[in-house]
Amino acid sequence: MVYRRTEKVEARQAQLRQTLLNSALQLVAEGGFGALTIVELAQRAGIATGTVYKYFDSKAQLCAEVFTLGTEKELARVREKALAEGPASQRLLNAVESFAVRAIRGRRLAYALIAEPVDPQVDTQRLKYRQAYAQIFQQLVEDGIRRGEFPPQEAAVSAAALVGVIAEALVGPLTWPLDGSDAVIDQPRLIEAIQTFCLRAVAGSNAPAGAPRPGQRMP
Amino acid sequence: MVYRRTEKVEARQAQLRQTLLNSALQLVAEGGFGALTIVELAQRAGIATGTVYKYFDSKAQLCAEVFTLGTEKELARVREKALAEGPASQRLLNAVESFAVRAIRGRRLAYALIAEPVDPQVDTQRLKYRQAYAQIFQQLVEDGIRRGEFPPQEAAVSAAALVGVIAEALVGPLTWPLDGSDAVIDQPRLIEAIQTFCLRAVAGSNAPAGAPRPGQRMP
Repeated sequence: MVYRRTEKVEARQAQLRQTLLNSALQLVAEGGFGALTIVELAQRAGIATGTVYKYFDSKAQLCAEVFTLGTEKELARVREKALAEGPASQRLLNAVESFAVRAIRGRRLAYALIAEPVDPQVDTQRLKYRQAYAQIFQQLVEDGIRRGEFPPQEAAVSAAALVGVIAEALVGPLTWPLDGSDAVIDQPRLIEAIQTFCLRAVAGSNAPAGAPRPGQRMP
Repeated sequence: MVYRRTEKVEARQAQLRQTLLNSALQLVAEGGFGALTIVELAQRAGIATGTVYKYFDSKAQLCAEVFTLGTEKELARVREKALAEGPASQRLLNAVESFAVRAIRGRRLAYALIAEPVDPQVDTQRLKYRQAYAQIFQQLVEDGIRRGEFPPQEAAVSAAALVGVIAEALVGPLTWPLDGSDAVIDQPRLIEAIQTFCLRAVAGSNAPAGAPRPGQRMP
């Protein structure tokens, strides 16, 4: 009896913890890390403010876990696009497009995950996940070299550089007003510009004549 | 009399403030922002810990000002290389090389300025200065397009992307052990790889036949 009750309690606690994380991610998606407060989170979950601290040691730890939750989803999608079948050039274009389209659509969340000034614990997670992205791109670049699509290059350097390009080229646009009226360039042009930059950088003039053009997607 | 004494006091205070900032930058260069403590800073300056707070409202404000001091110097050097006379391709290669060589030479400071997880006030400054770097590269890219060295492109996007490349491609290497024994690739190859990536990305296959190769510098 005691054993089963403990199991139930633990399951309920794990569920509440996950609910809190999901609500926290929602708050960040609505207004960035600045909108994530323990008070607001407790209110949404219908629990006392102090109870939140039973699940997370600090606001900083909560932010770091919310960052991880949000970023894991994006990382999985980029991995899926980048390491699919087919020409490496096309996979690069697809991965960039997929990341950029989602970032622009959910720009408050994307800005929060990529660049919003927040606790150093989040910065530590950012560095870790940028490495995870770089590892995916390194596989892609090595694959492209092996297939003769890309010229020989330091794949690890190109991979880190690609992560830098995608993040940095989006940071500015993600802070444009939500209605897009003051956008410096429109979204398709922005995405195509990032794609072109990335493809030129890794494929150079060695790109095969039949190489896909940015903006094109595989069916 | 009173007036002159006030002037003297103010001058002395301004001088001490600058001395504190220089010492703080030195501490960061030796051990990153983690090594910058108010206690250590006060000891170096031979003043009481509490006195430091007369000059800086908080540790965070101090960190942000130290960041600015260190970054302004690097920004000025990149501006000088990027906006010099001569072909845009060569200026791009020179700017990348200059930044990377200095970053690798003073890698603790460079890592601290570029990526070390630290107070959000520093992150805010980082975003601001990345824009300043991007503005320089935008001028360079626009110049290259005008001169027919680079194909037409969204100069603002390419410029932000270049900033991302340079920062991100160096973050990993800057955390390699100081003696370089565990370096994944050696420094000249690293720098050349970053140069090649940048030049290909903005110049593409439209690069003139006589375009400089990475690793080459103007005399």
